[in-house]
Amino acid sequence: MITITAKSLIKEGKEEDFKILAIKLVQESRKEKGCLSYNLYKDLKNPNIFTFIEEWKNEEAIKLHNDSIHFTTIVPKMAELREGKPEINLYQMIKGEFL
Amino acid sequence: MITITAKSLIKEGKEEDFKILAIKLVQESRKEKGCLSYNLYKDLKNPNIFTFIEEWKNEEAIKLHNDSIHFTTIVPKMAELREGKPEINLYQMIKGEFL
Repeated sequence: MITITAKSLIKEGKEEDFKILAIKLVQESRKEKGCLSYNLYKDLKNPNIFTFIEEWKNEEAIKLHNDSIHFTTIVPKMAELREGKPEINLYQMIKGEFL
Repeated sequence: MITITAKSLIKEGKEEDFKILAIKLVQESRKEKGCLSYNLYKDLKNPNIFTFIEEWKNEEAIKLHNDSIHFTTIVPKMAELREGKPEINLYQMIKGEFL
């Protein structure tokens, strides 16, 4: 499993526009076979920060997601509403004998 | 529910020391009544980045966590192994008629 966090700082006044696009992206991404979870969050202190937290089956699932129609049409529109670049990290959960 | 992401950049060579402390913090935090989930992640591209993703019942649960013996003893030790400050965000999941 691979976990992705994708954090965006949205331009002042563009929060609702971003949210509409982001919700569409969540809805479509959740339909993908390799998507284990895909959620959208708003920061409790800064109303201009939105973050996706996503869980994917493997790298192949992420590749298919990045090439999907919904990703390649919605993400460029979200980019126009963003201040700077998103902060994206791909993570592996630490598990083992103690966890 | 409140979701917390806490991202740390760890000093070169201190990754294993951090991991030992972080695992102890995960183990103890999961025992807390208001803790819904508490996981530790390592970045797939940068071996010096570690992130906790945590789900808490409410603000009161987070306050109890921040005042707990394990938090107040382990977190200062982790701070010594970190480059700069951690990046901490508190989030609310966006739900509604469309999600």
